[in-house]
Amino acid sequence: MKIGIIGLGLIGGSIGLRLQKLNHIVFGVTNNDINKKKAQQRHLANYVSSDLDILKECSLIILALPVSDLINPSEELIKAIPQNAVVTDVGSIKGPIVEKWEKTHPLFIGSHPMAGNEKNGVGSGYESLLDNAKWIITPTSKTNLNSINVICKLITSMKCEVLRTSPKQHDEAVSLISHLPIFLACSLIETANIENNKSLLDLTEKLAASGFADTTRVGGGNAKLGLDLAVNNQQNILQALKRFKNKINELEELIQEKDWESLFQKLSKAIEIRKDFLN
Amino acid sequence: MKIGIIGLGLIGGSIGLRLQKLNHIVFGVTNNDINKKKAQQRHLANYVSSDLDILKECSLIILALPVSDLINPSEELIKAIPQNAVVTDVGSIKGPIVEKWEKTHPLFIGSHPMAGNEKNGVGSGYESLLDNAKWIITPTSKTNLNSINVICKLITSMKCEVLRTSPKQHDEAVSLISHLPIFLACSLIETANIENNKSLLDLTEKLAASGFADTTRVGGGNAKLGLDLAVNNQQNILQALKRFKNKINELEELIQEKDWESLFQKLSKAIEIRKDFLN
Repeated sequence: MKIGIIGLGLIGGSIGLRLQKLNHIVFGVTNNDINKKKAQQRHLANYVSSDLDILKECSLIILALPVSDLINPSEELIKAIPQNAVVTDVGSIKGPIVEKWEKTHPLFIGSHPMAGNEKNGVGSGYESLLDNAKWIITPTSKTNLNSINVICKLITSMKCEVLRTSPKQHDEAVSLISHLPIFLACSLIETANIENNKSLLDLTEKLAASGFADTTRVGGGNAKLGLDLAVNNQQNILQALKRFKNKINELEELIQEKDWESLFQKLSKAIEIRKDFLN
Repeated sequence: MKIGIIGLGLIGGSIGLRLQKLNHIVFGVTNNDINKKKAQQRHLANYVSSDLDILKECSLIILALPVSDLINPSEELIKAIPQNAVVTDVGSIKGPIVEKWEKTHPLFIGSHPMAGNEKNGVGSGYESLLDNAKWIITPTSKTNLNSINVICKLITSMKCEVLRTSPKQHDEAVSLISHLPIFLACSLIETANIENNKSLLDLTEKLAASGFADTTRVGGGNAKLGLDLAVNNQQNILQALKRFKNKINELEELIQEKDWESLFQKLSKAIEIRKDFLN
């Protein structure tokens, strides 16, 4: 297949590398000539251009742009997408993107591969990023059935697992396990940054080890992404923050009251729940 | 040197493996015969026993026991440690441990290697765990100077970096970057565990990917450790929780008020601070 990828950052670049391995012909679009050169050097696509015209023969288009650009696409972008191409996006939220693109293109289906790290840009994609990733699709009653089939087949061929849900439930679920952690990481980093005690700050900086690195990883990446999520998934994120604050208050109270037995049970139960989540 | 390690879990076992590579003779003590067999099979020490008598010729003793056992050591343990051996511990808090052991042994010096993962037990240690780790020592005015020298030399020979601070400042710093993340992870796991909405919970469980795994890793390990930290570093942890809650409230307000510019600045600044911490 001739497949167009608009945006060759972490996700777009990784998809480009994998699709080439599967012998598709990949047409990648970057936002400027500097990124075009880098993407070419890294072979993120068979053909790379900063000109959207490169997409005209593609039968499948993957929109791998920042969330804000997906919700407010340029007229130029919309016009450049062939009317008979199946179109999907890989944005981290689905409600507003699906709403926009269902009005914009007849063969659109929303999707979201659950993969990532704290890197971004054309230098960051790599083929194994998507290994065994869950890849959500969010078709609605308006979605073309052939688009669903094409995207499911593609995802499966990339060794990812297809999960299907509604845009609404997707956005609720990711607010809990993907968006909330970004904001917690941000606040944890700020908490550790004791500005009024230089010697403590020096020590804290030196001691920050793998535990701190892992816990804050999702807050170390991309401020624009965090902002886009807050803007476009505001209510779910506020709801998740509220739930989280209740939980942390419960825990604080146990420590304050020295209710060690309940604290131990709480910590033990969390370990079990985590296993359910990650198995 | 003949070096005794009491406890061959994640840290004790990893130290045992590394010290053998450095041609020390390592005497390991486990708490029972089942763990003794496992430790022998994994060659965590040259000699493994569940009998403390094995330590009698050691000139250096490393206490790699749970924090609660370090603060309240058995009489049997205290008697088994040669009076002329240099003694250190590897516990995650220092104040109460140093206080206890300075009264207990003349050649004691507190220490804490900043390394770990979510595993524990005799099956979990591995030699590279300590690669390039920061290893804090917390001597006080009572600490024997030769003990400081011996421990510094040993740490350096293990390719770890020695950092020196007071027990008090150690416990403040780790409450921020090491203990607080455990409790946040616990609350985040509970938050994601939406018990009153089965279909959302199912989806959330399926979607939990590397971001959630990393953010909650430190909450996935050892409930007993979390409890010991809360019990023995209570005030610092409560202080850290209070600071954190202020930060999360600030962030929540920005999202609530749609103050996107300030939110973006906050997220951007956190990314920069994180780099300072981890470089």
